Amino acid sequence: MEYDLDSFSARDWERPTDADPIRFAMVGLGWWTREQAIPAVEDADYCTTTVLVSSSTEKADEVAADLDGIEATLTYDEYADGAATDAYDAAYVGTPNGLHRGHVEAAAEHDKAVLCEKPLEATVEDARACVDACRQADVPLMVAYRVQTEPVARRARELIDDGAIGDVVSVLGHMSDRILDAVGEDSWRFDPELSGGTTLNDIGIYPLNTIRFILEENPEAVYARTESEQPAYDGTDEHGAFQLEFPDGKLASCTVTHSATLASSLRFVGTEGELSIEGLFFPNTRKVLRVSGPDIEGEYRPEPVDQMREEFDYFANRLQHGEDPEPDGEHGMVDMRTIRALYESAEQGRRVELDR
Amino acid sequence: MEYDLDSFSARDWERPTDADPIRFAMVGLGWWTREQAIPAVEDADYCTTTVLVSSSTEKADEVAADLDGIEATLTYDEYADGAATDAYDAAYVGTPNGLHRGHVEAAAEHDKAVLCEKPLEATVEDARACVDACRQADVPLMVAYRVQTEPVARRARELIDDGAIGDVVSVLGHMSDRILDAVGEDSWRFDPELSGGTTLNDIGIYPLNTIRFILEENPEAVYARTESEQPAYDGTDEHGAFQLEFPDGKLASCTVTHSATLASSLRFVGTEGELSIEGLFFPNTRKVLRVSGPDIEGEYRPEPVDQMREEFDYFANRLQHGEDPEPDGEHGMVDMRTIRALYESAEQGRRVELDR
Repeated sequence: MEYDLDSFSARDWERPTDADPIRFAMVGLGWWTREQAIPAVEDADYCTTTVLVSSSTEKADEVAADLDGIEATLTYDEYADGAATDAYDAAYVGTPNGLHRGHVEAAAEHDKAVLCEKPLEATVEDARACVDACRQADVPLMVAYRVQTEPVARRARELIDDGAIGDVVSVLGHMSDRILDAVGEDSWRFDPELSGGTTLNDIGIYPLNTIRFILEENPEAVYARTESEQPAYDGTDEHGAFQLEFPDGKLASCTVTHSATLASSLRFVGTEGELSIEGLFFPNTRKVLRVSGPDIEGEYRPEPVDQMREEFDYFANRLQHGEDPEPDGEHGMVDMRTIRALYESAEQGRRVELDR
Repeated sequence: MEYDLDSFSARDWERPTDADPIRFAMVGLGWWTREQAIPAVEDADYCTTTVLVSSSTEKADEVAADLDGIEATLTYDEYADGAATDAYDAAYVGTPNGLHRGHVEAAAEHDKAVLCEKPLEATVEDARACVDACRQADVPLMVAYRVQTEPVARRARELIDDGAIGDVVSVLGHMSDRILDAVGEDSWRFDPELSGGTTLNDIGIYPLNTIRFILEENPEAVYARTESEQPAYDGTDEHGAFQLEFPDGKLASCTVTHSATLASSLRFVGTEGELSIEGLFFPNTRKVLRVSGPDIEGEYRPEPVDQMREEFDYFANRLQHGEDPEPDGEHGMVDMRTIRALYESAEQGRRVELDR
């Protein structure tokens, strides 16, 4: 088999349509929604932002002032009560993790599709409630794992699935950033009640979910260790390292920290070759995929894409065709259970098996 | 501070001398000694092979037939009894791990310096006996961690020590090979009594020791998981993943397997930058050191060196100056205790703390 690294289509999921764009209510106007989600949708082909939902009308109006096409600005209560439901088709839930549930349940009640930020919620129980609410209302729920619509991740998955490096045996992953500099120590991210955990949960989920996506398998057992040094991390985790046991003896080892240089790496070692990706977990940067195997040797360095735009366009394009977008709520539940097991492991200093 | 990647001297340890070359007795003539150690010494500047020691005189004579300058061929018993001690200055012990002790003790008894293959022995107790024998006889003992005299590892250590990437927070390491294809299933490596363990022990020691060398720190606690699939690995380990906890919250995550493509990677993520090395753990291949930090950004790709030759020449050059070579026996004991803790952790599924 011969592989051509450049033959890959960045939008392998895209299907033409004459349907109207999907209109989003943006729920939660924090840093990520303002700096990443809203600009991505402004640049998107298949969706648009029409409603802004925040803690106060003033805050929503302030954000709306810089945007075209906003039809309503709502408080969380007005949104929950069903205001302006004619003005949007789907809700993007980008509030603190521990507040997702109420907003997802409201969207389900209003018969709106949901794109919910990852992790689904701060606890497994509240995440389960999100998934159940959408299922009972029969509305699509996608969890916002933007790496899954990143072309380089999809290309890597395809190469590994095609056997380009043989059977995967070992996986290494890392993500680090300086979240404290970006959001300040008063952020909900440092409050485990609202976040569900600070580092393993917030960025450990990147290697965890991406390895699951690329291998198309789920972990069977885990181990984790966490460390905290700076005062902002009192009672929560600043640095972490974790292992994931996948079927057939595959082992993944990962490190994450919120207190180091911006870094992202992922490496799959197989029986016949090796595949690594630099920069994968950041939304707008250059990615480099390197692969070597019996029938392939080279680098794939496509033009960077806006991962958030790709995610929103994928979600919208699927809805335009009346199809459910993936990854769905059950997929997100696997990460919720895995992260709970990671924290349990870190607390007890032992390996924790996951229920199948 | 400005860094110049190319200004590094490949032999930063080398000091001129008019002394005679150090004459080696090669103890154990298996695959590694014949294919790697003896050719390295043939190519070396400061040492030479003068004595060959094996299970039978026939085997030693057979190897001697292809070499110049051999003054004696001995059985293990003859070597232990002190034959031909005038013909060599130092012993290279390259037998199966679990047979090192007798040969090291004999060398110490004959007042010969020792270069002993890693790990020191199959058990902590026998390794301790090797170290004690050399100390009591006042002979130098170096453990053969050839990566420590590899220029790329020394360059990486210097850069990190100089603060090129800030303080190290996370470390990732991997090594894999196909030892079964190289040595066959009857090899002592698959017998834990003789080897001390197959994969964590045989190749896990590469990332373990190299991370210790570069950080200049020792692990305080560990966790490991092992897996075995092929029949040759019954009762021992084929794949492994392990975590090392270093001082100040530094966490290292590693994967190793004897059943995957030849692969070697090491990555240090710091508060200010990142340093990675490809290919470090193989003796003759091209290495690539990549580093990015506030004052440095680039690649270091020196001409490959023969790691075994560098190791032998370093050892010999030190002896010529009447100085003890490093890494010494106590350094090797840290790996012995760490590897014992790794296997204990894998068996019990829990974190294991190391005695300070």
